[in-house]
Amino acid sequence: MKKTIFYHAGCPVCVSAEHDVIQLIGSENVDIVHLGEDKSEIETAEKLGVVSVPALVTPSQNVLHINFGASIDDIR
Amino acid sequence: MKKTIFYHAGCPVCVSAEHDVIQLIGSENVDIVHLGEDKSEIETAEKLGVVSVPALVTPSQNVLHINFGASIDDIR
Repeated sequence: MKKTIFYHAGCPVCVSAEHDVIQLIGSENVDIVHLGEDKSEIETAEKLGVVSVPALVTPSQNVLHINFGASIDDIR
Repeated sequence: MKKTIFYHAGCPVCVSAEHDVIQLIGSENVDIVHLGEDKSEIETAEKLGVVSVPALVTPSQNVLHINFGASIDDIR
């Protein structure tokens, strides 16, 4: 099974959500991508349908946007 | 451990998110509450900090608002 991907940008909202997601799903089931530090991943995230962070992309490629930290355009 | 609670109101966004959440966390770990059908739960949800649905309340009582279906005021 593909892993879930958690996209974030280091904002306080993201860090809080990351903690919750890892607690719920288990760290071994989630890949964490920091779009602020790894800007080359922004294009991939956008292609998956991510429009804001924090966001979870499920193994079935659905995007769950959690709370609202920052829009993708603000991270560039 | 307390269960996670998933609040929704039957909207298409909610149903899609519910499917994803159950897939990620496991149905045995989540209580599903339909605020449109069980309006007596709205006050409890609000006290927990839920301002829109779909939303997850974690066992540590953090609220994760997922995507955006409807604000609590629209459900009343």
